[in-house]
Amino acid sequence: MATIFSRIIAGEIPCYKVAEDEKNFAFLDINPVNRGHVLVVPKTENDYIFNLSDDDYASLTMFARRVAKALEQAVECKRVGVAVIGLEVPHAHIHLIPIVEEKDMYFNKPKMTLPAEEMQAIADAIASKM
Amino acid sequence: MATIFSRIIAGEIPCYKVAEDEKNFAFLDINPVNRGHVLVVPKTENDYIFNLSDDDYASLTMFARRVAKALEQAVECKRVGVAVIGLEVPHAHIHLIPIVEEKDMYFNKPKMTLPAEEMQAIADAIASKM
Repeated sequence: MATIFSRIIAGEIPCYKVAEDEKNFAFLDINPVNRGHVLVVPKTENDYIFNLSDDDYASLTMFARRVAKALEQAVECKRVGVAVIGLEVPHAHIHLIPIVEEKDMYFNKPKMTLPAEEMQAIADAIASKM
Repeated sequence: MATIFSRIIAGEIPCYKVAEDEKNFAFLDINPVNRGHVLVVPKTENDYIFNLSDDDYASLTMFARRVAKALEQAVECKRVGVAVIGLEVPHAHIHLIPIVEEKDMYFNKPKMTLPAEEMQAIADAIASKM
């Protein structure tokens, strides 16, 4: 069965899309750790980032950097933090989180829920910087 | 002034070295979030991972994957998590952390201090898998 991320990429589940290229896709985390939290995923399903092919891994990490550069211009922050945990959804994904302090990327604090209009505005702002 | 990581790479400050190549260096975090916590750093000083040159960034991320593959063979875990925070030491670094559960990579739990012999044994075990 397709992962939830594959269904998002296919458009079967709506998302706040930020960017895509031939091999990768980026969209807002629906329950952000901090405002502007983006998920970057390869279009190919693979449970574990370090099991991607060399090409797909290189493509994903370079694409993540492009998204991070856009994100840091679009959302007020000191820099963009990175996390890969990967225990919940069996489809490799990189978290990109705008941070000012380390605690802005603590995963064990309560997640945010932002209004749809704000989520769309954040996604549009990042997309405009790509 | 050289960063603490440059001084470690230069051998001025001791470390539990795991691996190095022409452009990158890996060693154990002295206060691990979880057992086997490795720091991967570029030999070139640059405060922010996304400001590395394309070549240096690609080299660092590919090297980090090699270290992660060795780490997951050397230390009991479900997979290797990744974090880049980068607010404390002005020298880009990737945290590689063996995890079984998400909480194994929470940065706001008390850090570990392991005996020197155990740290050396972990570093040697990872190095042997490179």
